[in-house]
Amino acid sequence: MAKCKKHLLIGSTGFLGSEIAKDLCSRNQVVFGTYHRHHKKGFSLSGSVRMFQLDVRNRQGMERLVARIKPDYIYYLAAQSSVRLSWANPVETININLVGGINLLEIAKKLALRSKIIIFSSGTIYGETHNHKQKVFESDRLEPKDPYSISKAALDSFARIYAKNFKLNICVVRPCNIVGRNQSKTFSIANFAYQIKNISLGKQKPIIDVGNLSASRDYIDVRDAIQAISEVSGKGKPGEAYNIGRGKPVKIGHALKEIIELSKIEKIKVRKNEAFTSKDEILRMALASGKMKQLSGWEPRIPLRQTLNDMLR
Amino acid sequence: MAKCKKHLLIGSTGFLGSEIAKDLCSRNQVVFGTYHRHHKKGFSLSGSVRMFQLDVRNRQGMERLVARIKPDYIYYLAAQSSVRLSWANPVETININLVGGINLLEIAKKLALRSKIIIFSSGTIYGETHNHKQKVFESDRLEPKDPYSISKAALDSFARIYAKNFKLNICVVRPCNIVGRNQSKTFSIANFAYQIKNISLGKQKPIIDVGNLSASRDYIDVRDAIQAISEVSGKGKPGEAYNIGRGKPVKIGHALKEIIELSKIEKIKVRKNEAFTSKDEILRMALASGKMKQLSGWEPRIPLRQTLNDMLR
Repeated sequence: MAKCKKHLLIGSTGFLGSEIAKDLCSRNQVVFGTYHRHHKKGFSLSGSVRMFQLDVRNRQGMERLVARIKPDYIYYLAAQSSVRLSWANPVETININLVGGINLLEIAKKLALRSKIIIFSSGTIYGETHNHKQKVFESDRLEPKDPYSISKAALDSFARIYAKNFKLNICVVRPCNIVGRNQSKTFSIANFAYQIKNISLGKQKPIIDVGNLSASRDYIDVRDAIQAISEVSGKGKPGEAYNIGRGKPVKIGHALKEIIELSKIEKIKVRKNEAFTSKDEILRMALASGKMKQLSGWEPRIPLRQTLNDMLR
Repeated sequence: MAKCKKHLLIGSTGFLGSEIAKDLCSRNQVVFGTYHRHHKKGFSLSGSVRMFQLDVRNRQGMERLVARIKPDYIYYLAAQSSVRLSWANPVETININLVGGINLLEIAKKLALRSKIIIFSSGTIYGETHNHKQKVFESDRLEPKDPYSISKAALDSFARIYAKNFKLNICVVRPCNIVGRNQSKTFSIANFAYQIKNISLGKQKPIIDVGNLSASRDYIDVRDAIQAISEVSGKGKPGEAYNIGRGKPVKIGHALKEIIELSKIEKIKVRKNEAFTSKDEILRMALASGKMKQLSGWEPRIPLRQTLNDMLR
């Protein structure tokens, strides 16, 4: 990636946004970020990321910002990202994930942007299809099973038809379950790590509350994910969607067992908590990422065990 | 259908809504309708349809109405129904077609409604899939090509997951191109009929403006469509989607030629008008409706020629 390119991260204060920002800063890129309500203190990386408040449902505000910055790269990361919360508030999920994304696409069309635009979809959009195939390919059927995944499937379709019809340089990424340090404890593995740390500090009894342990997930380390996103921003073809995953599903219960083992704390009990489960979950998720490998040689490099170990530190 | 059931048509002043209302009234059903801005005069069918103003984006207003009427049947017909206009205003299309529909589903969940709910999706949601198959089945891949079709595909998915997760009695119908008298002239065949009538009255020169004539469409008469909808409201299984079509695609240009022939006006010229074409249209549409036949024996009965003839009267 050439030096001194301008990157705009729309929705930059989440897990992935923060990590992408750090990575871009470390490579001397010029980074702009937006936040909605919660601007994490200390996030501005000693002033390297210029932060703006933005509600993605406000198209005019977004247009002013894009027109002012003239970014070379735009990443649409703004999302209500919890499947569980999407059942509680589907309309808000549609407004942030889909309508906010359409606002960006409409701005790109109106201003005839030449920026590379990366739209963040999700491996969950294949939904029920995961249950019928060893691995799902980008060309497989989308059969989303929850409001979050429907919002992402719709945005994914919008991004591809806008790329095609208006000759915009848009790529879609469909990540599997990304795990790593600094992740919000609304996600299962991060939640396990958080509880284990509390147990080791004596803040919590040696009992871990868990949701459904029998489902399988396709986990990759956030550093591998960031590498993949960087490859797509450099080489991705307009209008194409790229799976980002390992394709080797791991049972949530297996990951829990492994992280407990790595913690070296003895006698941790596991307790099922219904509040941690979601409706009609995907039972088994595995993304074929041959298209990414073909694009750039990308493959995940960090084993899950190493990620889990890092998350305990 | 038993007598004196209560039917609520959300979005009742469009072509299909009006025709369903007339049919229900003729069968002595109790019919309630909503309209947004445009309440057609004379629509109330001598007082048989009780009309209420409602913006489907206003969930509270919709909830009050549903709670007050306690309908046995609810039809979600509210839509921005033009593919062309959906490119001009995708967010409004999402808000009316999708968010309005989610509002109804959320109300059904909250009030634990036992009403039969019919959600109007569209045969266009298969999009690109139409170009690769002789006929599309309900189980085929959804690959929408325009904002209207994405809004309908998302609502279709929402309706099915709500039926499954909350045990609601919801069916989805996916109609092909419905044609008939009283249809808005934003739709091609109705537009041809309108222009021909104007020519015969001397209000228009004998030149018909047309869009793309080479694409094929699956046309059925509105009376056949209403029969199918009535079968689904009676026998449709919760959570299921039903194609409503003939499965025999006809070129738009062929339908034009036929309606000109039926008009018996000589020397009508045809002129291509770019304003009548839409972006990235489906080239060939054909819905397999074996699932409807299996459900109730339903099949379309009225030949296209008869429909076209009736539209000229």
